Amino acid sequence: MTVGRWGLGMVIAIGVQARAMADEAAIALPPPERTDPVTLGLMQGFPPPPDKVVTLANTLKFPNGRWAFHHLRALGPTANVARGALPPSALPSAPRPLDEVALTDAKGLSTTIAQWQSATYTDALLVLHRGKVVYEKYYVGMLAEEPHVLWSTTKSFTGLLAAMLINEGKLDPQATIATYVPELAASAWGDATLQQTLDMTTAVQYREDYTDPKSPLFQYARAAGLIPAPAGDGGPHALFDYLRTLRKDGEHGAGFVYKSVDTEVVGLVLQRVTAKSYAELAAERIWRPLGAEQDAYVWVDPVGMAVTSIGLNATLRDLARFGEMLRNDGKVDGREVVPKAAIEAIRRGADREKFKASGLTERFGYSYHDNWWIAHDTDGSFEAKGLNGQHIHINPAAELVIVKLSSHPLGNTIHTHTIDRRAFAAIAGAVR
Amino acid sequence: MTVGRWGLGMVIAIGVQARAMADEAAIALPPPERTDPVTLGLMQGFPPPPDKVVTLANTLKFPNGRWAFHHLRALGPTANVARGALPPSALPSAPRPLDEVALTDAKGLSTTIAQWQSATYTDALLVLHRGKVVYEKYYVGMLAEEPHVLWSTTKSFTGLLAAMLINEGKLDPQATIATYVPELAASAWGDATLQQTLDMTTAVQYREDYTDPKSPLFQYARAAGLIPAPAGDGGPHALFDYLRTLRKDGEHGAGFVYKSVDTEVVGLVLQRVTAKSYAELAAERIWRPLGAEQDAYVWVDPVGMAVTSIGLNATLRDLARFGEMLRNDGKVDGREVVPKAAIEAIRRGADREKFKASGLTERFGYSYHDNWWIAHDTDGSFEAKGLNGQHIHINPAAELVIVKLSSHPLGNTIHTHTIDRRAFAAIAGAVR
Repeated sequence: MTVGRWGLGMVIAIGVQARAMADEAAIALPPPERTDPVTLGLMQGFPPPPDKVVTLANTLKFPNGRWAFHHLRALGPTANVARGALPPSALPSAPRPLDEVALTDAKGLSTTIAQWQSATYTDALLVLHRGKVVYEKYYVGMLAEEPHVLWSTTKSFTGLLAAMLINEGKLDPQATIATYVPELAASAWGDATLQQTLDMTTAVQYREDYTDPKSPLFQYARAAGLIPAPAGDGGPHALFDYLRTLRKDGEHGAGFVYKSVDTEVVGLVLQRVTAKSYAELAAERIWRPLGAEQDAYVWVDPVGMAVTSIGLNATLRDLARFGEMLRNDGKVDGREVVPKAAIEAIRRGADREKFKASGLTERFGYSYHDNWWIAHDTDGSFEAKGLNGQHIHINPAAELVIVKLSSHPLGNTIHTHTIDRRAFAAIAGAVR
Repeated sequence: MTVGRWGLGMVIAIGVQARAMADEAAIALPPPERTDPVTLGLMQGFPPPPDKVVTLANTLKFPNGRWAFHHLRALGPTANVARGALPPSALPSAPRPLDEVALTDAKGLSTTIAQWQSATYTDALLVLHRGKVVYEKYYVGMLAEEPHVLWSTTKSFTGLLAAMLINEGKLDPQATIATYVPELAASAWGDATLQQTLDMTTAVQYREDYTDPKSPLFQYARAAGLIPAPAGDGGPHALFDYLRTLRKDGEHGAGFVYKSVDTEVVGLVLQRVTAKSYAELAAERIWRPLGAEQDAYVWVDPVGMAVTSIGLNATLRDLARFGEMLRNDGKVDGREVVPKAAIEAIRRGADREKFKASGLTERFGYSYHDNWWIAHDTDGSFEAKGLNGQHIHINPAAELVIVKLSSHPLGNTIHTHTIDRRAFAAIAGAVR
């Protein structure tokens, strides 16, 4: 068993932070073929041997995520995003052989779609072309019926819900957060607008720096109940209590700085304005009308509040339905699920100059708007992305949706950005 | 808010214990109409006010169960019992007015089915007659799609799975537990037979005495992760580790003594013999072939092992399907889900003389067999029962299945046994 040595120091990144990225990229990666959780015996046996037990305390230590990311609810409290009881919407199949499709990796070496999946620690991959499933694969023992954690891909669901409520006039993007959540008036967000919060151009004394154990990031994760608090930890032990402690640092609107707490604030606004829990809202607005095949679920904090920035879990097939609905201007089988105007508002993107503040040079030309990554490419592609390699890639010109779920040892998707984009393009070329 | 005073001292019973029962019955009950969790504001608001937060630490303090029992997975780790992706089996509707059906309560006073539901803190009730839904009600804000905790009703699912494997010859009821789980050889169960464990006639130094905080019951619940361990608690913090500590006390086979740990041992045997998790096994053997409408779920302990004695949660409608399948000798729409022989083995019951050791005089004439309560009445009724008023009542002669889910302040179903049986009989009389 040599995986143990890879686990040492394999801390993870939530979000984007340039210095951390450089550190992370220098770490040698474990050979993917030696990280299968079933072969490794993770959580196998009744009960599993003590050294094979995955808990909340060790979930983020590689390779434990290879099991944990499709079993997150076995580790803590969750709320169902209910699909209801109607039949799922159709997801017809038209398989195509994509494994041998060739591409060039970030180092200029020739590789294939099959090799790319392995090299990027893929747990599941689905390609929809013109609404048909042309490719669907599961690895690491993951089943089609098992929801996978989405981490920051969650943000794009939260952003879409906000865009829908803005489109209905129930939310004003230029109103301050204090308008909706008065208790946050003294916090960093008191005078930030909803749109600044959705686009992460707020100025908050907070950094997602995972190389520093004292980073606010870890306080956030502990407040969310996603990392166990050490003995004697004084808290806060609830997301809302944590958000209230954060203060302003500079001027809002200056530049894009990726931070999960912004989206938690958006999630709070959604729930206050609708008087519905995030799980209810996501079910009512997305999951049920989408004709999802399985319930999704969201992690909840110690007082039962959904973690609306990184807490959603869903199946591969339902994420494909979600992407396809967005590709079809919000329609499923001709029925409107999301108004076209709300999707257009997202796809317009934000200020690409302000995006440069992020330091994400690999994603040059992108903007981040309503919690979506907008590529501003000729295909009009837009994406939801999450830690450890979660992707919903929508390419309207190619009539293509790709969903990739992964348990990459490196958190930040920026490390695989170049090869992932080339793989998406190679698939687009093969199916067109 | 007067509910607080009812909450004080409202500890609950897991299982059956005669002395505790007498103590419990002396406690004045809160007026049910003042215990609606939505009206009380339990877990309402974003976030809920601190004094309205339900956590694992206070779930068992009445009235918190009125919210928690249909939101258990919001409090901790669980595993899905997956329904798969096929359409649910039919559950046709043929409503009948049962609210005003009259009966006499345990004190000889006249009451009605509607009043009985309220007086016994019902969360949901469904009556199936000849396979048709004649009555279906939800209270306390519970939705049809929400699973409700079953507590000890779980045992009857575990017992049924064991009966199926016995029927297939995969388990020998006369083999000792040590045969299947060698690590338990030195424990109380080393020389107990599987059948003794299924019928709870084992002799184990363990009592479900909830009036004593030092009762093994609380160690069991802490090991299962259902009650948070106090700071400095040395464990065990896993079910299996706890079971290994229990020692024999007397001779196996002497009399029926209700104890949840017996069923945890059966659950362990099932998983060892099939090499499948309890959630997988229940899905494969029951939930999928039943055509369930929603996933069920099971609480898991700190190392991911299902709590197979009290940990299952399911929707009202799926429990009705389950009861109806058993009433139809194991068939759903003509397809065999459970072999008739396995159900017949359960319904034969156990030694009624040995049942007397339980001290459950209200249930005179019953036996407890394969984790089912067998009434040995002229209608051939058999029942699954759980703490705080969970019931699956199957009456073959009346072609009737009644499922009742409750959050009664008193744990033990013996307190309401007389009125529950009269209500079941009154319903049978009304629909016949």
